[in-house]
Amino acid sequence: MSANDSICVLGLGLIGGSLLRAATAAGRVGFGYNRSPATVDEARDAGYDADADLDVVLTRAATQDALIVIATPVTALDPILGAIARHAPNCALTDVISVKAVVAQAVAEHGLSDRYVGGHPMAGTAESGWAATDPALFTGATWVVGTDDGVDPEVWQSVSALAGDVGAVVVPVATDDHDRAVAAISHLPHLTAAVTAAVGGGEGALALRLAAGSFRDGTRVAGTAVPLQRAMLEANAPALLITLSETIDRLTRARDELRDRGSVQVVADNGHRARLRYEEMAGDEPDPIVDVEIGAPGWTGDLRHQAHLGRVWRGAQTRSASPE
Amino acid sequence: MSANDSICVLGLGLIGGSLLRAATAAGRVGFGYNRSPATVDEARDAGYDADADLDVVLTRAATQDALIVIATPVTALDPILGAIARHAPNCALTDVISVKAVVAQAVAEHGLSDRYVGGHPMAGTAESGWAATDPALFTGATWVVGTDDGVDPEVWQSVSALAGDVGAVVVPVATDDHDRAVAAISHLPHLTAAVTAAVGGGEGALALRLAAGSFRDGTRVAGTAVPLQRAMLEANAPALLITLSETIDRLTRARDELRDRGSVQVVADNGHRARLRYEEMAGDEPDPIVDVEIGAPGWTGDLRHQAHLGRVWRGAQTRSASPE
Repeated sequence: MSANDSICVLGLGLIGGSLLRAATAAGRVGFGYNRSPATVDEARDAGYDADADLDVVLTRAATQDALIVIATPVTALDPILGAIARHAPNCALTDVISVKAVVAQAVAEHGLSDRYVGGHPMAGTAESGWAATDPALFTGATWVVGTDDGVDPEVWQSVSALAGDVGAVVVPVATDDHDRAVAAISHLPHLTAAVTAAVGGGEGALALRLAAGSFRDGTRVAGTAVPLQRAMLEANAPALLITLSETIDRLTRARDELRDRGSVQVVADNGHRARLRYEEMAGDEPDPIVDVEIGAPGWTGDLRHQAHLGRVWRGAQTRSASPE
Repeated sequence: MSANDSICVLGLGLIGGSLLRAATAAGRVGFGYNRSPATVDEARDAGYDADADLDVVLTRAATQDALIVIATPVTALDPILGAIARHAPNCALTDVISVKAVVAQAVAEHGLSDRYVGGHPMAGTAESGWAATDPALFTGATWVVGTDDGVDPEVWQSVSALAGDVGAVVVPVATDDHDRAVAAISHLPHLTAAVTAAVGGGEGALALRLAAGSFRDGTRVAGTAVPLQRAMLEANAPALLITLSETIDRLTRARDELRDRGSVQVVADNGHRARLRYEEMAGDEPDPIVDVEIGAPGWTGDLRHQAHLGRVWRGAQTRSASPE
């Protein structure tokens, strides 16, 4: 595990830049790398420790035994991991990329699996780049921490502590479960937003002039930069295909219901019920995961089981929910 | 036309109640009807002139030559129109219902077409009822005013003046064009939101715990009361079926693109382009419709033509856009 609170953030876009800012605000020693000197200049102008030389940054991470956080697009992963393997192979390693199976595989190919625990903060906007960074981006967000069998408990705790320090709550999830869940609640909404926008836009200026709240909110994420959307969605193609097919099936049944019986009752009921369940969960303070000692036999399965019930990790808690 | 500024609002839910409040705030004499005495009490407690006796309200509308605004669900239309035909057949008549062909047909069946000009303010929230009313609901909204050939120019101006008084801009649209456009930019987004919510909800508590902005915004309108959604969408079934089929086709092509080429480029590009066009239109002050004299030969066609270019009616304007 990291012997200290240093973190090294690779990639200073919306997520990485916000993380560097939030972790620094939380009292951590943070430094970062970005490929673009312009972004490095923006970060430095804002008072942060940033550099465009990856080797230099990783050598420093190794010296300080920092926790390395990969915050680049998934498409940039391979050279980044190559450099880590060369310069800082013993550092604890995590990432904030929105898919997990592809990253875990790339990490394995570079021989870095032992020190890797994946992460994914469920936060973002349609904006991107350093200018969009916000140290409060993670406040109240959920932060997935990879919890497959065999992960290093010390790295797991180091990653979870970082998430907690920047205001997020930890959800321990296995790689495949993560990818399936985010296909449904993040990647699919990008596709339905895109198609909804395209259908409305196809009706021309008059229709767009009439567009109000349902169109505005329902198509918001279609405004995300296309390369970012492609990197995210295409890296999760297998899970997204399943969930996209289900969506097409549901819409087709809705069309049949409307055509044959003049009704949208089934589709509206199902959607309404799911939305209310979501609002209920979003409105309630989540229950904590209890009675799990990190590193004890079966700890990963215990965490995953409780996360499936909607609970979150807030550090070690006993059943009475009082801190140990 | 109405000889004065009186308006009679039938139905005091979100739209009707907000209209009564906004019109009163704009200095108009407004009074209203609601079937539910509880809602009438709420309106009265807030200082508004409301009654649960439809015959009494309509008799008063006839005496004052008020503009009657139907703000009930489309499913309640028939008895309302029957009462108007009995008690106030000579009043100017409009509505704020979200479909126009069905309303126009019902109005015709009650022999009220001569004094009717349809309307549809593009404003609303997922909330409903008097408690959700807001006198600022229409500020900056677009308000469709029915502009088929043959509509009465004086009633048309009366309806447009009301929309302007409550802060909206008028978009003159033919019945069929309206229904097709709102199918695409309002009714379809309800179905895509419903299906997106159902797919996410189907993944269980873990997935909903991970849901963030894309799911929250993309499924918001699925939270609208199901009876309201059904009344709105089912009354526009023919237009909605066309747009829903197009949506299924686009999603199916997206699935094929993802499965066969691992790419979401086409769907993401199309959605992104449409969303940016929408943002551009939503961000710009719309150009005014110019050089149309209401009631002059060809006025309805002239208005519709300019509305198709994205322009809005702000009262008579010459090409230089200075008020006449």
